[in-house]
Amino acid sequence: MEHNELRGRVAAANRQIASAGLVELSFGNVSGVDRAAGLFAIKPSGVACSELVPDQVVLVSLDDGRVVEGELRPSSDTPTHLHLYRSFDEIGGVVHTHSPFATSWAQARRPIPCFGTTHADHFHGEVPVTRPLRADEVGGDYEMSTGEVIAETFLGNGLDPLHHPGVLVASHGPFTWGADPDEAVMNAVAVEVIARMAYQTLGISGDASPIEPFLLDRHFQRKHGPNAYYGQSVPPGT
Amino acid sequence: MEHNELRGRVAAANRQIASAGLVELSFGNVSGVDRAAGLFAIKPSGVACSELVPDQVVLVSLDDGRVVEGELRPSSDTPTHLHLYRSFDEIGGVVHTHSPFATSWAQARRPIPCFGTTHADHFHGEVPVTRPLRADEVGGDYEMSTGEVIAETFLGNGLDPLHHPGVLVASHGPFTWGADPDEAVMNAVAVEVIARMAYQTLGISGDASPIEPFLLDRHFQRKHGPNAYYGQSVPPGT
Amino acid sequence: MEHNELRGRVAAANRQIASAGLVELSFGNVSGVDRAAGLFAIKPSGVACSELVPDQVVLVSLDDGRVVEGELRPSSDTPTHLHLYRSFDEIGGVVHTHSPFATSWAQARRPIPCFGTTHADHFHGEVPVTRPLRADEVGGDYEMSTGEVIAETFLGNGLDPLHHPGVLVASHGPFTWGADPDEAVMNAVAVEVIARMAYQTLGISGDASPIEPFLLDRHFQRKHGPNAYYGQSVPPGT
Amino acid sequence: MEHNELRGRVAAANRQIASAGLVELSFGNVSGVDRAAGLFAIKPSGVACSELVPDQVVLVSLDDGRVVEGELRPSSDTPTHLHLYRSFDEIGGVVHTHSPFATSWAQARRPIPCFGTTHADHFHGEVPVTRPLRADEVGGDYEMSTGEVIAETFLGNGLDPLHHPGVLVASHGPFTWGADPDEAVMNAVAVEVIARMAYQTLGISGDASPIEPFLLDRHFQRKHGPNAYYGQSVPPGT
Repeated sequence: MEHNELRGRVAAANRQIASAGLVELSFGNVSGVDRAAGLFAIKPSGVACSELVPDQVVLVSLDDGRVVEGELRPSSDTPTHLHLYRSFDEIGGVVHTHSPFATSWAQARRPIPCFGTTHADHFHGEVPVTRPLRADEVGGDYEMSTGEVIAETFLGNGLDPLHHPGVLVASHGPFTWGADPDEAVMNAVAVEVIARMAYQTLGISGDASPIEPFLLDRHFQRKHGPNAYYGQSVPPGT
Repeated sequence: MEHNELRGRVAAANRQIASAGLVELSFGNVSGVDRAAGLFAIKPSGVACSELVPDQVVLVSLDDGRVVEGELRPSSDTPTHLHLYRSFDEIGGVVHTHSPFATSWAQARRPIPCFGTTHADHFHGEVPVTRPLRADEVGGDYEMSTGEVIAETFLGNGLDPLHHPGVLVASHGPFTWGADPDEAVMNAVAVEVIARMAYQTLGISGDASPIEPFLLDRHFQRKHGPNAYYGQSVPPGT
Repeated sequence: MEHNELRGRVAAANRQIASAGLVELSFGNVSGVDRAAGLFAIKPSGVACSELVPDQVVLVSLDDGRVVEGELRPSSDTPTHLHLYRSFDEIGGVVHTHSPFATSWAQARRPIPCFGTTHADHFHGEVPVTRPLRADEVGGDYEMSTGEVIAETFLGNGLDPLHHPGVLVASHGPFTWGADPDEAVMNAVAVEVIARMAYQTLGISGDASPIEPFLLDRHFQRKHGPNAYYGQSVPPGT
Repeated sequence: MEHNELRGRVAAANRQIASAGLVELSFGNVSGVDRAAGLFAIKPSGVACSELVPDQVVLVSLDDGRVVEGELRPSSDTPTHLHLYRSFDEIGGVVHTHSPFATSWAQARRPIPCFGTTHADHFHGEVPVTRPLRADEVGGDYEMSTGEVIAETFLGNGLDPLHHPGVLVASHGPFTWGADPDEAVMNAVAVEVIARMAYQTLGISGDASPIEPFLLDRHFQRKHGPNAYYGQSVPPGT
């Protein structure tokens, strides 16, 4: 069995979304890509994230979405993951959950406004929401269309997928991504935290406003910009 | 002592609704049926679900609701379970809880609208709510009348109990069911998740609309229809 | 050291309100009475409930509220407990918490309407709220006045403390009681569950109505009335 | 390595805000000061609070904010902590979190009204909120400006930092403090509890009023005033 490291990382990331409380039942999946090998690894369909082991992880071709290795059927959301890897060259991991607060915003079909710095630390602006899928899209290759409407949301609005590392699919739930599966999981946690706080902010002040662009920029850049000074990647004293 | 396997499954399912956070105190019960033997197994009254052991499970006749075997008094909701097994031939397990979000919808006497795909994965439309019971029903054989008003809700509206695997009893709480006790428990978890998300969706957008019928159908059918492709019952690559 | 059994029960009940999630920091206390001995046992002030051991429990005289035995200062709420034991002859245990949903209703100075059967299983009508204390009461023997305003709420409205086993003190939080400390703790759990569901019910339907008196009576009586048939105190088959 | 005791206390306090559920990801930090030594100890940047060990704690000069000892980069919020220690002579520990309810009030840019005695036990009036920072403040030494706007909020309104042991930074989140790191952590827990209850109180009664000044005074003084009688610092029987 090949690609053991990738399988291991993807299995661990799937268990992590369960232990972080983002997943009930089997509503969630994580994948990770190996672009050099032309494939990605993804959770099998209908298996609980909390108990996933590396041998159950399925390898899928980046070319045609067919199973390369694995005895189980891959997640029914596999075509969505495939389309995201093809559309967003910079990403190495994708997470889908039905985490409760983020899904509630998706169900309300509203983007999550950036009400504070917790949000700005992760997204350079609102968490976008896709348009609803049309009947022909839902009736056709539905899961592929889900990927397409995500890509359309980003390309049509000139959004950078690394500056907005996630999206709400209307009436469905969040997809997030990152440089690798771990970062995609961290962004799934962040989207749920952001969604909860925004929900509660509206409960306190129904007409709350998004933060000023200069505050948004400062927080996003201090973690993600060329002069980032958050974390340990820059030595102390500089 | 006979029917040890059924007792064991029913005891485990009762412990599971406690560990899933659906039950506080002793507000909940699970039963499972053995139609060939003409009986069902159910939790005793007033015993905490979290500590139930197989020997405490009570066996009750499908014919007349009398105790067949067991030293403890069966759940006071036993006549409701009995009537559900008699009315819905397809079901093998029944769960009753007072899980907090689902019970809140029951108390508001509103069906839960289908706001998203999490819901559509489990219910082919809204989670129905019964009419309130009348004074004569409450004053008479109350728990049997609870079963009757559930059956009336389904028969009167032409609902298929396998397509709507649960109901809210007005001012009371949810009952769910399934092919066996485990599936009934999974549907109890699903109803609580659905109820929470719908509550939060209304908090974000008070005039949120149910999803389009084509999206509802697609999600329900991909898990439950004749061409279902979710889970592992279909081999990969098909 | 005498009264070891009572100390042990009271210590256990204090740990239980912590493990049930009703208490943050040191905001809570449980007491239990021994009427024959003319004293009650109560948590010391400022000690975390979660770590309470029997030796720390303080014994207080039912006559004058003075410490009979114990090296620590008793809870600052001791005069409230004292007044409740004196006013309500039927009770054997008292619990005070600042559990979050019940306290929110107390802060809103609204009684909790009986929106469903979960509530009716424990309270024969709404969970009452006291009038706000006056400046002279707060400035005088404040904790004793808290007990007095609770007794006034019950006596003035003809409420039976065993049919309404708890109250919300306006702007403060819930006090509950029962035949013994364990039952008082169970009622503290029930009040928090009831308060949460009522809060959520209002969120779904702002004009929700209390349940019909016949449903209220049926549920309360099936657990607490002379012909109660809930739990194991009546043999099966009767 | 010096100052081992301080490092140990600060590491433990950081782990405590994680175990208390106040911190997701790395959104939080605790520091503690040694005024005699002219330095404070603080969490490193981007490290999870839940796993912090004493050797990772960074020592920073109270004079110029430079690292005195430690191999990791200190928290990006270090200049805010520095300014608080300089502005408020009485404090020995500072906590910053993005705890969800307190942050929601900060995002709504509303002070938390004192709706009950849980609040009055910790704050002698509302939990204040700062004005939003201006573009020049955010664009300049942002974290120092955060400290400055907190000090401005207290000095401008004549607030005593020991009577209001915390603040909401607009669009950001809570900072709390105390005589030492442990007390600062307790106040961080208290602010989150207070924020949650106030949120829920508004959900029950949108026009709820703050409590009367005489009740506010009584509760605050019974724990913090010259004649305090809460806890074990006064012997029993007095």
